[in-house]
Amino acid sequence: MTISLEELQLATRNHGMPLEALRHDVTPVGLHYLLVHYDVPVVDPATWTLEVGGAVERPLTLTLDDLRLRHTETLAVTLECAGNGRALLDPRAISQPWLREAVGTGEWTGTPLAGLLEEAGVAPGAREVLFSGLDRGVEAGMAQAYERSLALDDALRPEVLLAWGLNGGVLPPQHGFPLRLVVPGWYGMTSVKWLARITVLEQPFEGYQNARAYRMRASEDDPGVPVTRMMPRALLAPPGVPEFMTRRRFLAPGPVTLEGRAWSGWAPVESVDVSTDGGATWAAAELDDPVGEFAWRRFSLTWDAPPGEHELCVRCRDAQGNTTPETPPWNVGGYANNALHRVLTTVG
Amino acid sequence: MTISLEELQLATRNHGMPLEALRHDVTPVGLHYLLVHYDVPVVDPATWTLEVGGAVERPLTLTLDDLRLRHTETLAVTLECAGNGRALLDPRAISQPWLREAVGTGEWTGTPLAGLLEEAGVAPGAREVLFSGLDRGVEAGMAQAYERSLALDDALRPEVLLAWGLNGGVLPPQHGFPLRLVVPGWYGMTSVKWLARITVLEQPFEGYQNARAYRMRASEDDPGVPVTRMMPRALLAPPGVPEFMTRRRFLAPGPVTLEGRAWSGWAPVESVDVSTDGGATWAAAELDDPVGEFAWRRFSLTWDAPPGEHELCVRCRDAQGNTTPETPPWNVGGYANNALHRVLTTVG
Repeated sequence: MTISLEELQLATRNHGMPLEALRHDVTPVGLHYLLVHYDVPVVDPATWTLEVGGAVERPLTLTLDDLRLRHTETLAVTLECAGNGRALLDPRAISQPWLREAVGTGEWTGTPLAGLLEEAGVAPGAREVLFSGLDRGVEAGMAQAYERSLALDDALRPEVLLAWGLNGGVLPPQHGFPLRLVVPGWYGMTSVKWLARITVLEQPFEGYQNARAYRMRASEDDPGVPVTRMMPRALLAPPGVPEFMTRRRFLAPGPVTLEGRAWSGWAPVESVDVSTDGGATWAAAELDDPVGEFAWRRFSLTWDAPPGEHELCVRCRDAQGNTTPETPPWNVGGYANNALHRVLTTVG
Repeated sequence: MTISLEELQLATRNHGMPLEALRHDVTPVGLHYLLVHYDVPVVDPATWTLEVGGAVERPLTLTLDDLRLRHTETLAVTLECAGNGRALLDPRAISQPWLREAVGTGEWTGTPLAGLLEEAGVAPGAREVLFSGLDRGVEAGMAQAYERSLALDDALRPEVLLAWGLNGGVLPPQHGFPLRLVVPGWYGMTSVKWLARITVLEQPFEGYQNARAYRMRASEDDPGVPVTRMMPRALLAPPGVPEFMTRRRFLAPGPVTLEGRAWSGWAPVESVDVSTDGGATWAAAELDDPVGEFAWRRFSLTWDAPPGEHELCVRCRDAQGNTTPETPPWNVGGYANNALHRVLTTVG
């Protein structure tokens, strides 16, 4: 594999969650994955407002204080970047070169979007809701703000939040200060940061991030289908200690707890299996309760590690029967690669 | 440039500070650069202690509460990774492939190390102080904890802190929870994280991170000299908006404030110059007061941007006469590359 300067520029700005942080139920701020399309905007909360308009009966202009006075909820949500696993595909799309670390679980505090839309009065012909951020840039030759739409039914789900808090503190600048959308179960591109405007639409949104990016395409000519919910995935907190450069793991012989986290945006994770022989044989891991309805669940298994070289693998299945494939599922944009996780380990 | 999988693995875990965050006096948590050699350890603060031993009259064992009861200071400190700029060298050392973003300024809260050493009673023959972290791994074939020493005189400087807080909050796991060393002015490898033990030595420490890594070497055979304080550097907050992949900047014609930060670990930064024609001509930028004695200072300059393609450059000089070279200063390990910063910009 060789990575270009342009990909490295993105990898230097954005970052994954080091996998040892899978040991935390809730990912500490700064360890949660981060993907910023353009620049992190500097926003003055004193003058910032949220506009709610379009096909509504009563357009709203809300300050941060207005929002904080509304019904407030805190929800643990696992977010994963749609491009997680992209750099493991061959050939791969040239974009942020994620390996496997683009995930995290935050406790997001905010107010349900549905209540706000109800107050604004959605028009009978409404079909979608567009979320526009303050981050601006050029992509595919077009100057644009980052914005994406959701079908009205998806936007009205009770778990969809407008969040101003993370892990008990103020939303950090890089995660969307002062306000972001959080859409549990969906890949992260849906949870628009630095929200400025919510527009109810009577026609489908044809902007770049919906119509061209974030689509599962079999070839360059294929219009594809939208990337939506997170495919199931299980990741292992690598046991033992790493070698600095290779990240190969080293541990002493004897009993060791193999643990990690599994999640799916489609349905609850029902089973996680662990292999210590490269996938030849599998054992069912024990599952803890999920951290929340929309958050990952911990799995664990005790392994009596014998001396030698071992390839650890972990796979999972959700209640809809979705699984983690052995072979990375290829598509043009490099989205949703949830191939099973392998960890090379030396015991001795 | 092509980057290997091993370098990408490091780039996915560690991360720089997106340069738009140069607009903040103090870097928000999660935007500060992060370099972790091995894994971020999970530490239970209830059972953690700091051992102070070696060539001292009164060895100490201190809990976090013991430390918090001591004299407490908060200091704004700019930290930069010694490998910042490494990936811009040719040939380059294979390690964390930093471009320019491995920097940040934190407000660190803790107690001066000197007071603790005084209490322990440093023996007359003492020469160095060794700082040992809880992070363990394998590097250059050797299993090791991350540990580095400082000459006694450097360790006794009044600005050297044992820090348990960052930006008014608890030290995050990835920055060394529950306690880290902060050595203002020095490259970041000196500020050992997840501190477990401080050992006063009567002989020089010959461990890997002092004797082999972090040395300025002209060739593989050269034993080299230690990497110590930060060379001067000035970085521009890129103006306008970025193109997603290339990070090239786009802005409208007319007046724009060019701003950024400059720092040096050797002496105060005295001047910053900005060029908008690739270094053919230079103009002196205005300098704000430094954020602190050991922190960066903001520079700014108004530019009446004409339509066209422009290469912005920024250079600086400190009070000792150290400057930012035009050509990257090469060495085997790829350390201390403080070559001047260039930003390609399209105005139109």
